[in-house]
Amino acid sequence: MAIGEFSLIDKYFSAFDKGEDIILGIGDDCALTTIAKNHCLAITTDTLNEGVHFFKHLNPYLLGYKSLVVNLSDLAAMGAKAAYFTLSLNMPQSDENFLQEFARGLYDCAHNNCNIKLIGGNTSQGHLSISISAYGMVKNNCALLRSNAKVGDYIVVTGDIGLPGLYVDAGYGYKHITQDDFNAIEHQVQCKENRCALMYELATNNLSCCAIDISDGLIGDLSHICDSSNVSAVLDVNKLPFDAMLDKFSLTFKEKVDYCLYGGCDYEVLFTCKAEDYDRVLATAFCHSTKLSVIGKVVSKQDQKIVCKLNDEIYQQDKQAFEHFYN
Amino acid sequence: MAIGEFSLIDKYFSAFDKGEDIILGIGDDCALTTIAKNHCLAITTDTLNEGVHFFKHLNPYLLGYKSLVVNLSDLAAMGAKAAYFTLSLNMPQSDENFLQEFARGLYDCAHNNCNIKLIGGNTSQGHLSISISAYGMVKNNCALLRSNAKVGDYIVVTGDIGLPGLYVDAGYGYKHITQDDFNAIEHQVQCKENRCALMYELATNNLSCCAIDISDGLIGDLSHICDSSNVSAVLDVNKLPFDAMLDKFSLTFKEKVDYCLYGGCDYEVLFTCKAEDYDRVLATAFCHSTKLSVIGKVVSKQDQKIVCKLNDEIYQQDKQAFEHFYN
Repeated sequence: MAIGEFSLIDKYFSAFDKGEDIILGIGDDCALTTIAKNHCLAITTDTLNEGVHFFKHLNPYLLGYKSLVVNLSDLAAMGAKAAYFTLSLNMPQSDENFLQEFARGLYDCAHNNCNIKLIGGNTSQGHLSISISAYGMVKNNCALLRSNAKVGDYIVVTGDIGLPGLYVDAGYGYKHITQDDFNAIEHQVQCKENRCALMYELATNNLSCCAIDISDGLIGDLSHICDSSNVSAVLDVNKLPFDAMLDKFSLTFKEKVDYCLYGGCDYEVLFTCKAEDYDRVLATAFCHSTKLSVIGKVVSKQDQKIVCKLNDEIYQQDKQAFEHFYN
Repeated sequence: MAIGEFSLIDKYFSAFDKGEDIILGIGDDCALTTIAKNHCLAITTDTLNEGVHFFKHLNPYLLGYKSLVVNLSDLAAMGAKAAYFTLSLNMPQSDENFLQEFARGLYDCAHNNCNIKLIGGNTSQGHLSISISAYGMVKNNCALLRSNAKVGDYIVVTGDIGLPGLYVDAGYGYKHITQDDFNAIEHQVQCKENRCALMYELATNNLSCCAIDISDGLIGDLSHICDSSNVSAVLDVNKLPFDAMLDKFSLTFKEKVDYCLYGGCDYEVLFTCKAEDYDRVLATAFCHSTKLSVIGKVVSKQDQKIVCKLNDEIYQQDKQAFEHFYN
């Protein structure tokens, strides 16, 4: 993290000022930080590569926004209050317009519903790639672990899901929509609100003790919880919180379900809670203006890890959809 | 930091076990850590891109080793004891041989003279690029800041320098050496020993309070100290600790000096200490089997930031060399 290589981006990130728990930010060999009292530090790192994690020519504002979103959703899924982050940015050449817009997107994300501070990083010449490490504070013994789901727990999801699945399909040309529609979806998909404050409060008040973020698709992510907790899950596909924008595109019910279950990149949080706590969970979410949906229940371990139901009948999962999104 | 994408590398990194200050390592949305009592956390992040920070087809063992070296030298330059790190690895395709050798190099570096633990990360498809964030513990109020140099301080450098300059020159074909010589140099240049334990001890005992790692070339890095501390420096080029391997190549004195002053990538530590503390500094370095060289003195601010001398005469700095390495 030498000064020289970072001066380029520091210029565009001066809007990020110091915060509590930060002793020293940008400008020396390392940043120096502390951890809030009675907390431990949650650390996550994610990399986005052009053509793999985002489409070529993605608007740099949206790219800046999304780069932080993917890390904030990991912090939220751990029950962490967002604190600070570092940025490593590879770009083919120094492009002031790109940097300015990228920084604006990053800044807006960092100040939307949290107040996370940039403490260091570097810029290098290379193929467009963004690597962010983000840090949050978790109250001692309150981390939301994948291994903490208990039989009988409700399975809850924040916000709406499914739209990123359609976006990716449209971007690859599998689904034909107008450019205007694509642009509108793109903005909504990349500029996701983070759930850190809500999940920190739920964790700290012991209203949840198990969560994961929905990045690889609901089924894939839920199966990590099932594996780690040694349980199975029953989902009611009728309860999936379809993003309202999906209704614009004359999709079948099955298509909407597939986008929700296998699409991925939703960056919402999937968590479990005791049935008797759900009223308090809902009240907490209300204070954070966050919609919640109970989409299923944790059950004891069965042969099939996740059973999907529709009106109490088995809903056949679409293996083809699964493979389509996972390849 | 999803399980799925990291399982590939996790397989090769299982040799990295848990350590103190690590509550939770690889396998959930975030790692969870603490900070040692009476310490703060030093955080650094560095990215290495193929063709920019290392030559194409660099042996993956050496690449793994170097990837951590560049971060450890930042921790050392802050006076930090190495604690844990995360890894983001982009590679064009999953290559088991590459991963195995890369992991072996990383593992050897992590256990050579320190005991730093891998706590998480991700692997992605992309152009070969390695981004590591590394974490260390700095005793409260003992950080080695660039802004702490004082007039009269000795300027000291650890180990030997200059060889990476020759290595880069030879790699680009500016300097012709045999392939065997190139290979021998390459190994020595990439597998640098880290100075974390020594610098942590010097910092903790208040024997130094200012340091920087030599990554951009001694002159460039020293000038950061001069700028931050509002001082100038006088260097004695006769005191530069030329790497003994440089003698194999019939270099002129001027060439050797240029490699030391402008070559960069030495990953040694440049630090200052009070003249009256130097005997204790030297004794501490002896316990860590580390060579030290006093190469100059901090002086009050002058028109010329850094004056180089040879036998008390002004030694003319070679602007061409400066531009050669910096472009």
